[in-house]
Amino acid sequence: MAPPAQYLINGQKDAGLSALDRGVAYGDGVFRTLRISQGVPVDWSLHYNKLAHDCSALGIACPTQSSLLADIERLCSSHPELVAKIMVTRGSGSRGYSTSSSASPTRIVMVDSYPDYPDIYYAEGVSLHLCRLRLSHQPLLAGIKHLNRLENVLARSEWSDSRFADGLLLDQEDLVIECTMSNIIARFGTILVTPALDQCGVAGVTRQRILDNADHMGYYAEVRPLTLIQLMQADEVIICNSLFGAWQVRSLNNSEWARQDLAIQIRSMLQE
Amino acid sequence: MAPPAQYLINGQKDAGLSALDRGVAYGDGVFRTLRISQGVPVDWSLHYNKLAHDCSALGIACPTQSSLLADIERLCSSHPELVAKIMVTRGSGSRGYSTSSSASPTRIVMVDSYPDYPDIYYAEGVSLHLCRLRLSHQPLLAGIKHLNRLENVLARSEWSDSRFADGLLLDQEDLVIECTMSNIIARFGTILVTPALDQCGVAGVTRQRILDNADHMGYYAEVRPLTLIQLMQADEVIICNSLFGAWQVRSLNNSEWARQDLAIQIRSMLQE
Repeated sequence: MAPPAQYLINGQKDAGLSALDRGVAYGDGVFRTLRISQGVPVDWSLHYNKLAHDCSALGIACPTQSSLLADIERLCSSHPELVAKIMVTRGSGSRGYSTSSSASPTRIVMVDSYPDYPDIYYAEGVSLHLCRLRLSHQPLLAGIKHLNRLENVLARSEWSDSRFADGLLLDQEDLVIECTMSNIIARFGTILVTPALDQCGVAGVTRQRILDNADHMGYYAEVRPLTLIQLMQADEVIICNSLFGAWQVRSLNNSEWARQDLAIQIRSMLQE
Repeated sequence: MAPPAQYLINGQKDAGLSALDRGVAYGDGVFRTLRISQGVPVDWSLHYNKLAHDCSALGIACPTQSSLLADIERLCSSHPELVAKIMVTRGSGSRGYSTSSSASPTRIVMVDSYPDYPDIYYAEGVSLHLCRLRLSHQPLLAGIKHLNRLENVLARSEWSDSRFADGLLLDQEDLVIECTMSNIIARFGTILVTPALDQCGVAGVTRQRILDNADHMGYYAEVRPLTLIQLMQADEVIICNSLFGAWQVRSLNNSEWARQDLAIQIRSMLQE
């Protein structure tokens, strides 16, 4: 039986968040979702570095590694296989958009049961819904995993059919960007192409690990604009995130791909 | 001495917000800021209608008028001149963007002291900072006062000089949209022009009152795209919101306007 989600706010159990917190008022903060395996956060350094980067992009002081790891350890002791979510907000402030009042950041660490993904997603691959919502361009926020996620909420509400594991998001120029909860990578021969995320999208840690290890897996990695037509012509397409690793995309927009091995190869690399 | 901000969460004092609330996780909610005068919310029907409209746009059940008014009454009894802020979030949900788990909305009502705006803003007008940030286009969220407000936070952080009462925001096509905390209206002869907000921006209640009463004040109102060059050629420019009513813009981007009376006329109309 899965335990219910539990959390600590600034290290305190049973604490509630102030309604003055800028996290709720403006979505003024960032987050991470990561896997806890055998009680240990997977790819911790990458996640912490990305959290620190995203905090810095918004001018928020990032909590220390030791405070976050202590929170995770407290929450994960009795259930070693979990999902952890870390949120860092700018903290409580006075009303108004100005950040000049000296708020101290709020640190939220939450754990939840590991999602019950169907085995077939790993064994046979997944189908994607093609979202109607088009991601907006905001270069000042692009790549950052911030708390302004209404586009993802609206996009995710477009389908309820469990046949679709995720939804593909294009931008307003109809370029492929990402999925609602994962990044996307297309293979053309020995080249792995993943969309540039300088206008919108979230640059995930697993995407980064794949880019960093492409060479080692026998591929050449390219980060560049990718149209939907180009994506449909790829030899193979995978989606990836920190929870499931990688799944092959088998069908999208009435097209299908034969079963292939890139997702398996990536999952194997991710476990090294 | 101003009282500190106080709030009720679902009618409960001293309650904290759950860290599982989708308001903080995704900015999945909407809000209103309104003036309380002599203990009574000003323009209540307009604010409630707009709140209901914005909730509906996100598929969130809007709290009843009576629940919100009861909260306001409880919080305002001892300090009749205040600012109230209402936030409605989709409520606590399980992890992930899907809204399918049956969350019940969270209602937050907060009061704070009325802002101490300088008298000179009313008597002489204000200067605007021209923001470098460009608002992104998202037609599915345009006009809605939702909780995804990082663009406003980033734009507001561009200036600290108290000479500027607000910052003017353009979109990515360099069209004039609004200010960080107010709408903008330009007068050309007897025509009042305010930007169309179908791609970005927040359609405020005071802007709506001005549009609805333009005739009565002797003007013709137009909602249409407005370039910065056109704005600079206006005979007069004002900004407006539910707290200060209307202020004349006297300087922007090294240009100046002589003192005129539209803001005074609008404030007078708003008090009717």
